[in-house]
Amino acid sequence: MNKRIVVIGANAAGAKAAAKARRTDPKAEIVVLDRGSFISYGACGIPYYVSDTVKDLKELMSTPVGVVRDRNFFSKVKGVAVRTNTEVTGIDRLQKMIRLREAGGEESALPYDKLVLATGSSPFVPDLENVSLPNVFTVKSIEDAELLKQRAVAGASACIIGAGLIGLETAEALQGKGVQVTLVEMRDQLLPGVLDAEVAAVVEKHVKLQGVTVLTGCAVTGFAGEGKVQTVVAGGREIAADLVVLAPGVTPNVALAREAGLAIGVTGAIAVDEHLRTSDPDIYACGDCCETTHLVTGKKVFIPLGSTANKQGRVAGINAAGGEATFAGVIGTSILKVFNVNAGKTGLTESEALRHGFDVETVISPAPDRAHFFPGAKPILLKLVAERGTGRILGLQAAGEGAVDKRLDAAATAITFKASAEQLSQLDLAYAPPYGAAMDNLIVAADIMKNKLSGHARGISAREVKRKLEDGDDFILLDVRSPAEHGEIGIAGAKLIPLGALRERLEELPKEKEIVVFCKVSLRGYEAQKILDAAGFADVKFMDGGIMAWPYRFRDQ
Amino acid sequence: MNKRIVVIGANAAGAKAAAKARRTDPKAEIVVLDRGSFISYGACGIPYYVSDTVKDLKELMSTPVGVVRDRNFFSKVKGVAVRTNTEVTGIDRLQKMIRLREAGGEESALPYDKLVLATGSSPFVPDLENVSLPNVFTVKSIEDAELLKQRAVAGASACIIGAGLIGLETAEALQGKGVQVTLVEMRDQLLPGVLDAEVAAVVEKHVKLQGVTVLTGCAVTGFAGEGKVQTVVAGGREIAADLVVLAPGVTPNVALAREAGLAIGVTGAIAVDEHLRTSDPDIYACGDCCETTHLVTGKKVFIPLGSTANKQGRVAGINAAGGEATFAGVIGTSILKVFNVNAGKTGLTESEALRHGFDVETVISPAPDRAHFFPGAKPILLKLVAERGTGRILGLQAAGEGAVDKRLDAAATAITFKASAEQLSQLDLAYAPPYGAAMDNLIVAADIMKNKLSGHARGISAREVKRKLEDGDDFILLDVRSPAEHGEIGIAGAKLIPLGALRERLEELPKEKEIVVFCKVSLRGYEAQKILDAAGFADVKFMDGGIMAWPYRFRDQ
Repeated sequence: MNKRIVVIGANAAGAKAAAKARRTDPKAEIVVLDRGSFISYGACGIPYYVSDTVKDLKELMSTPVGVVRDRNFFSKVKGVAVRTNTEVTGIDRLQKMIRLREAGGEESALPYDKLVLATGSSPFVPDLENVSLPNVFTVKSIEDAELLKQRAVAGASACIIGAGLIGLETAEALQGKGVQVTLVEMRDQLLPGVLDAEVAAVVEKHVKLQGVTVLTGCAVTGFAGEGKVQTVVAGGREIAADLVVLAPGVTPNVALAREAGLAIGVTGAIAVDEHLRTSDPDIYACGDCCETTHLVTGKKVFIPLGSTANKQGRVAGINAAGGEATFAGVIGTSILKVFNVNAGKTGLTESEALRHGFDVETVISPAPDRAHFFPGAKPILLKLVAERGTGRILGLQAAGEGAVDKRLDAAATAITFKASAEQLSQLDLAYAPPYGAAMDNLIVAADIMKNKLSGHARGISAREVKRKLEDGDDFILLDVRSPAEHGEIGIAGAKLIPLGALRERLEELPKEKEIVVFCKVSLRGYEAQKILDAAGFADVKFMDGGIMAWPYRFRDQ
Repeated sequence: MNKRIVVIGANAAGAKAAAKARRTDPKAEIVVLDRGSFISYGACGIPYYVSDTVKDLKELMSTPVGVVRDRNFFSKVKGVAVRTNTEVTGIDRLQKMIRLREAGGEESALPYDKLVLATGSSPFVPDLENVSLPNVFTVKSIEDAELLKQRAVAGASACIIGAGLIGLETAEALQGKGVQVTLVEMRDQLLPGVLDAEVAAVVEKHVKLQGVTVLTGCAVTGFAGEGKVQTVVAGGREIAADLVVLAPGVTPNVALAREAGLAIGVTGAIAVDEHLRTSDPDIYACGDCCETTHLVTGKKVFIPLGSTANKQGRVAGINAAGGEATFAGVIGTSILKVFNVNAGKTGLTESEALRHGFDVETVISPAPDRAHFFPGAKPILLKLVAERGTGRILGLQAAGEGAVDKRLDAAATAITFKASAEQLSQLDLAYAPPYGAAMDNLIVAADIMKNKLSGHARGISAREVKRKLEDGDDFILLDVRSPAEHGEIGIAGAKLIPLGALRERLEELPKEKEIVVFCKVSLRGYEAQKILDAAGFADVKFMDGGIMAWPYRFRDQ
C-alpha cells in the first residue's frame, strides 16, 4: 500500500510541503487539510489587498504565471487532495491517526504514515476587556481583510496597536484610503526588535510626514465603548477610534502539537531538528508554527516569514516523502516598505548583539543609493554592526527612500558566510551609475568599519553627543561643513570651521580638549579627525553618520 | 625628511590612492600628476553626460555631498598637491626619479620614495585607414564627451562599433538625442564576454524595440570618406554615418611601466601582487592599468571598472604610505542599464566556465522581480551556472526590465564565499511583496539547480530544441500551458496538453519516444516531467526557461 502523507495547513509552508512531497514520492497519497476556505494565498499580500493595491483576491492565490492555486489545481496538477473547512481536532500519535471535523459534519479519523504540521501563526490578541468587539480587527486572514476593507472608509479614524511590520503596512493601507491613523506602540520606537532606535527614527520621520499620528512608549490598557470600541485607552490618554487594528505580533499555533505531546521549544513554537522533524520521528513541522536556529547567535528563534515558510515547506515535504533535506536556519532578515520609505535588517541589530554578549563596533553611513549624479538617486542610511577583535559582520540595518533591499541581500549573504569587514569591503558588487556609486554605500560602510576596528577612526553616536550637550559636558562640537550647509540645518552650540579651512585654522582649537567633529554624512568628519590627529590634538572623534544620522530634529515635529 | 609619494593619474584609482596615503601617513609629501586638465571625475558617468542626463560636468567631479574635487580641494582638504596638464615621460627606477613635462614647459625631474601608477586605460582604436578623421570618436574622457555632444544632433546618423557596455550606453545616449544609431558588433551577439547568447538576446530585443539597428557578426573593415568618414564598411555592407563611435573595448596604459622595465602580465596589463606592488618594490599600480586575479578561476584577468579602481586605489595608497593592505581580486561582476533593460553578470558565464574546463550545469529562470501581485512587478531572466559534482555556484547572469542588480549582488557575495547551490537556496534574503516573491527568483533558480544536479530535473536548452526542430529529429514537443497561452505565442509543431489535463491524457503520448515539455517559465514544464517520469515515460526533459527563454522570436523582428 502506498504511504499516506497528511499535511495540516494549506498556506505557504503546507502547500509547498505537499507539492514537494509529491515530486519526491510520485506514488504517495497526499492529503492537505485546512480549517479555512482559502488556501495557498500570500498572507504577506493582505495589507496590499486592504489598500486596494491588489484588486483581486485571486492574484494573491495565483502562481506567478496566473494559475489560481485552488483545490482543483492541487488535485489536477499536483496530484494532492486538499480538504478545506476541515478542522483537525487531535493527533493520536500511537495509532498514527488524526481526528478531524469538516464544517457541519461529524468528527472522523484519518490515518497517516507521515504527518506535516503547517498550522501557521495567529495574531496575538491582548487579554483586555472589549477586545472582541466587532470593530477590532487583526490582519492575517483573507476574512480579516474583507471585514477591514468594508470599514476602512475615508474620514474614519483607526487606532493601530503595534508598530511592527504588519502595523506599519496596515497604517499605510488605511491612510491611503483616507482613514485617519493613530499608531500606538508600547516600546519607545517604531519597529522595536527590527531596528535600532536611530534607524527606526528615519521610518518615524516618513510616517509622520504622511500624517499618521505616532504614539511611542504608549501601552494600551483598555478599550472603552459599548457594542463597539469607541476609544482606546493608552498611556493615560483616550484615543477615539472608529476601528481598531491589533498588530502587536503573532504567536505560533501549537495547540495541536502541545496536546499531542510534541516538544515545544523555548520560543513557544514547535521544536524541530534540522530535518524539521519534531520530537516524533513521523511528524514534521514547517512555517510559522515552528522555531528555527539563528545562524549568527546559534540560538533558537521564532521569526515567522513567508520566505522561510516556503524554504521549510520544501524540506519538510522532501523528508516526509522519504527524501533527505535539511534547513540550516535564518539570520533574521526582514524588510518593509511603508509609504515611500524602505527599511529592514539582516543579522543582529546593535541592541541584539549587545544582548547576546558581543563586543560591538558600529558604523552609520548615509549616502545616495546610486551614483549621486544619476537622476533619481535617493538617500539611504546604513548601520553596520561588527564584532570587535574578529571583525566579523554581525548585522546590517538600512532605511531610506532608496534601494535598501539589495544592500540587505548582499549583507545577508556575507553574514551567512561569516564575512569579516575586510571581506565585505572587497566584494565585487555590480557597479554602474544607475545602480550605485563606484564605492557602494555598503563598501564605504565596511571601509569605515575597518578604520574603526583598527583604531584609525573614532566615532561617537548621535545619542551620546546629545547626552553630552544635555549634561553640559566640556567639549567642542565642530561643524566642518560649508557655511551654507551650516546655515541650513545644524546643532546648537557647534563651532563652524569648513574642512577646506581646517588645516589653516588649527590655532583656533585647543589641543587638549575633547573635540567632536561632524559633517553631513561623516566622511568629512573622519577626514577632519585625521587632520587634527596629525596636528597633535589629543582627543578627537567624529559623530557617526553626521547630521544625516542626527535623529532629534525628527522628534515632535 | 618626509617621504615623497608620487601618484601618476588623478582619476578614480589615483585620487583614492593619494587620499588614503595621506590618512595613512600624515607627514608624507604627496604629489599627484595628471596629463589631462580634469581630475577625479567619474568616467563611468560620461555616457550620461553625452545624453544630457547629467547636465553639469561638475556633478561628475563632485563628492556625494556636492563638493567639487578639484586641485584646491585636494590641496586644502586632503593635503595633496595635484599637478594637471603634466605628462610623465619616463621613470628612472635606479635614481627613483620621474621625468615630467608640464604643458608648454621644459622637461624636469621629480624624485620619489614610493610611486603609484594609476595611468588608466584608453579606448582601443583599430588600425584602419581614416580612423583619425574628426568625426570618429571614443567615449572615455571629458574632452571626448564634449566633442561628441556637439555632433550628436537630432537627425544625424551614428555608427557605434562594439556592442559592449560602453557601446550600448552610448547607443542609448545618442538615440535619446534623436540620432539614428547603428550598432555594429563583430561577434554574433550583444555584450560578448559579458553574457551568454540567450541572455544577451533579451538585451537585443529591447535595444531593437527602441529603434537601434543592430548588426551582429559584422566586422568593420574600413572607413570611407574624405575629410570625414561618410560610410563604415562592415560585413560587406556600407553604413552611412555622420559620426562614428569606437567602443570595441579598452587597453591598459602600460607604456610608462613597460619602458621602465616593469613586468607586464599575461593580460597585457601591469603585473602586481596582492599588495598591488609591481615587480619593483617601490612602485605600486592600481585601477585600469593593472591586472588582477579572478577569484573563481584563479587566473589573471584585465577587467577595468571604476568600482575595482576605487578599492585598489585604497590598497595601493595604504601600502605606498607604509601601511599594510591587500586586494584579493574580482569575480568579474558587471552590469549595465540600456534603455529600460538592466543586464549583468557575476562570476563566470556558461561559455567562460566551459572554456576554463568546468563541468557545467545551467538553469534558466524567468520570473517577476517582486511578488507577481505587486504593482510594478517587472520580468527578469536569471541564468545560473554551477559546477557538477561539487554543486558550487560559478556564475549568475540576469537581464530584464526588473531589478537585476540585487540578484547579482547576492550571487556575487555567494560566489565570493564559494557557495553551493544548496547554500544559495537557503539564503535568508529580504522578503516583502514590494521587493520579491516569497521564493525569490534567485532561490527558485538555486532550487532548480539542486533538482538538476541531483538528476531529478532534466533540462534542455532552447538552442538545442531549435536545432532538433531544424534537423527534423523524431521527438515530441509538448506545450503544457493553457490553450489561451498556446494561442498567443508558441513554437510551431508543438502538441498542446495543459498541465491540469496531463494526468488524464497520458495515453495520447508514446511512452518510449523522446518528449520535450515546455511552458512559460519551466515550472510547469518540470512538473510535467515529474508526472511523466512517474507514469513510466522513458525520456522526458523540459525546455530551460520555457517560452520566456526562447530567444528566436526576437530575431529579425
